[in-house]
Amino acid sequence: QSSLTVYGVADAGLLLERGGADGPVQKIGSGMASSSRLGFKGKEDLGGGTVLTFILENGYSIDTGAAKQNGALFGRQALLCLSGKAGALSIGQQYTPFYKTLNNVADPFSTGMAGNAQNVFDDTTRISNTVEYITPRMGGFVADVQYGLGEAAGDSAKNRYLSASGSYEQGALTLELAHQRKENALASAHSRNTMLVARYRFGDVTGHAAHARNRDALGRESHDTLLGFTAQLSGGNKLFASLIDHRDQAAAQRHARQAALGVSHGLSRRTDLYAAYGHIRNSNGAQFHVGTAADSGSGTTGVNLGVRHVF
Amino acid sequence: QSSLTVYGVADAGLLLERGGADGPVQKIGSGMASSSRLGFKGKEDLGGGTVLTFILENGYSIDTGAAKQNGALFGRQALLCLSGKAGALSIGQQYTPFYKTLNNVADPFSTGMAGNAQNVFDDTTRISNTVEYITPRMGGFVADVQYGLGEAAGDSAKNRYLSASGSYEQGALTLELAHQRKENALASAHSRNTMLVARYRFGDVTGHAAHARNRDALGRESHDTLLGFTAQLSGGNKLFASLIDHRDQAAAQRHARQAALGVSHGLSRRTDLYAAYGHIRNSNGAQFHVGTAADSGSGTTGVNLGVRHVF
Amino acid sequence: QSSLTVYGVADAGLLLERGGADGPVQKIGSGMASSSRLGFKGKEDLGGGTVLTFILENGYSIDTGAAKQNGALFGRQALLCLSGKAGALSIGQQYTPFYKTLNNVADPFSTGMAGNAQNVFDDTTRISNTVEYITPRMGGFVADVQYGLGEAAGDSAKNRYLSASGSYEQGALTLELAHQRKENALASAHSRNTMLVARYRFGDVTGHAAHARNRDALGRESHDTLLGFTAQLSGGNKLFASLIDHRDQAAAQRHARQAALGVSHGLSRRTDLYAAYGHIRNSNGAQFHVGTAADSGSGTTGVNLGVRHVF
Repeated sequence: QSSLTVYGVADAGLLLERGGADGPVQKIGSGMASSSRLGFKGKEDLGGGTVLTFILENGYSIDTGAAKQNGALFGRQALLCLSGKAGALSIGQQYTPFYKTLNNVADPFSTGMAGNAQNVFDDTTRISNTVEYITPRMGGFVADVQYGLGEAAGDSAKNRYLSASGSYEQGALTLELAHQRKENALASAHSRNTMLVARYRFGDVTGHAAHARNRDALGRESHDTLLGFTAQLSGGNKLFASLIDHRDQAAAQRHARQAALGVSHGLSRRTDLYAAYGHIRNSNGAQFHVGTAADSGSGTTGVNLGVRHVF
Repeated sequence: QSSLTVYGVADAGLLLERGGADGPVQKIGSGMASSSRLGFKGKEDLGGGTVLTFILENGYSIDTGAAKQNGALFGRQALLCLSGKAGALSIGQQYTPFYKTLNNVADPFSTGMAGNAQNVFDDTTRISNTVEYITPRMGGFVADVQYGLGEAAGDSAKNRYLSASGSYEQGALTLELAHQRKENALASAHSRNTMLVARYRFGDVTGHAAHARNRDALGRESHDTLLGFTAQLSGGNKLFASLIDHRDQAAAQRHARQAALGVSHGLSRRTDLYAAYGHIRNSNGAQFHVGTAADSGSGTTGVNLGVRHVF
Repeated sequence: QSSLTVYGVADAGLLLERGGADGPVQKIGSGMASSSRLGFKGKEDLGGGTVLTFILENGYSIDTGAAKQNGALFGRQALLCLSGKAGALSIGQQYTPFYKTLNNVADPFSTGMAGNAQNVFDDTTRISNTVEYITPRMGGFVADVQYGLGEAAGDSAKNRYLSASGSYEQGALTLELAHQRKENALASAHSRNTMLVARYRFGDVTGHAAHARNRDALGRESHDTLLGFTAQLSGGNKLFASLIDHRDQAAAQRHARQAALGVSHGLSRRTDLYAAYGHIRNSNGAQFHVGTAADSGSGTTGVNLGVRHVF
């Protein structure tokens, strides 16, 4: 049995940015809540519990029609996956375990809108040339390991990428630990990030807490801490908010603090209207910007007003 | 209820160009009658008469397989639209009202083949970063307003685009007035075009007349006048012809005149064969070329012979 | 009647290359057995035995998600074809008859994996701006003629391409003769290749033999000879092997010899696992590399281990 599905997101609206170096700007926002995308995915049941899946997922800007991810056709995801009782093994252009922890568990904004945790947290969303293995769920535990080949001739350590996460779910609680490590082009140094996340569902309200420790390839360290919540309101409305504190451990103390609030109103199971506000206070010359799911942003204040349709 | 449709045009044939600076040339023509395209569109009924639509439309060259519109993936159209009793509001990469008037009403060639009115008329086919509103039809009247954000930080007037059209339809008659105005990158000057179009259906023959007044960002003015007809013949055959006169209002008097004749033969409801001939007489160093729907052309005479399939 | 099909190949695995100038390299291989692709094809029955077909086929790298063929969207194939009793006439970006002979008949590896005959044989896989005519099968004979327009203004000979093949099939035997000729950008010289291929099916084993004579635009000549077989084993397994001998006719005698062995194991009708090994011995400074279906390679030894899914 084989199947092919065409799916995607069309997300468009108005984006206001304030506090940028060149002054305020109004834009048509594409993919502010969820990056606009068009994907093709297929599935084949190979028998004995083994399933083959492929995903080819393009990211585009609805305001210009251009492909995102530096013009890559399937720059969001391109992978082949064999899954079964022993877990899932996949190959291709894939999300990193570190990003999945940030997006799926830590961030009330799911790395979207003006509250995107990636505005402050240092992560790698996706990596080319990867092999990934996800264990089956065992007593609430799941582990996810990814290896990104550097593909440098003569030295496989150059540009090598490694990420792993461990997740524990029990009732309303999710705990997740994630790590990533990226070798530079000469394999002379690496950056690394480690993050611990807790999420707890109190009825219609979900609380989020995350703490990350970062060390870049030059050895500079910083910490990020997030506190936030998601609240499911009546009438298909949803409220989400987060506070993120960035502590620079270097002498320059380039700290930053982001506060963000978002609301969405479901028009149907597939379509919602949303609005969000985010603000970053940069200290001592820190350079963080309020972005969206699809745009890294140019200002320190961002306002989003949009429609998201999932198809 | 939600739906996704894959649609498009595959249009290919032979293109001869004569009178160009580098000599005559024979080409494989792609999209001579209608630009070759592949699109994805979806629709969701949100209830209460409101419908959400999205369109993602790629333009490609069938002779090379490459994307058109400078390589943009969905460079033809990328938009999200909410429509209902109060009209239609859309956001994205869209056709301009000015272009739609030229294409849908003024030009017997529908801006295709060697007779493409765009060979002479000055228009902007599509614009990025736009919001557009189309009124419901009221007693034969429809208005269409589009605003293209310049997205320049600090000055929203830079690169701003504005276009609007008003249309009146009564029985066999269509009257349309369209205007566009494009600010330059410094917001120090703008170009503008205004066009009045009349179309009248006399049984199987439709007459077209259009007059446009143009003023570019340097203040140079010109007028364009089109007269043409479309005739539906027996056996699925169609004949169309137009004369276009371009009057340069500047001292240099770079006038031009285009004459074009086309014929199409329907093989089915979705497929036709076509042939067209167009010639431009440039005066006093005018530089107009005979192009096609997808190609701006290099010569002053163009001959098209092709097959168009709409899927 | 009209129809649209979305189809493709997702092929991913591990690729080891040894013997390259910069040292050994491990890569995620995309499309090693069959180049990864996503296509859209449609068909319309025009009546009277005439069928219109279009194909729009993209090639992508599953390891990065980027488009292949220098980023062309439908760089593998983009064509419109009218076929009927009198044969098939097609226009667009198409495979060459010369390549089809090499791929479909000569090469046990079907120009895939480490044994790809293109590692050594000099061919042109596809050409833009082409018209092609294929005769109906007449008593076992088929002819295929293709003309690629150079599209140079003033001189239609510049960059012109011509390829033709004649095929004869009788029972277990296939004989094919193919030729291609490519004019350079000034039409001052051309390269040409001629190839004779025989294939014979002995039950579950098929034998392949091919001999090609090449002359490049500088007049340098060489010969290529291939001997190989494909064996259908039990349990959905397949074995294929080939030896290719390249004889440089110039004084430098840059000869080369490739030996390759491959095996595939069908997991289903659409999915298989494969492994292949290929090695090239270059003499007197020859520079041939072991590639795959999608990658021209950097080493003289190649090892492939992958999964191919056809959808």
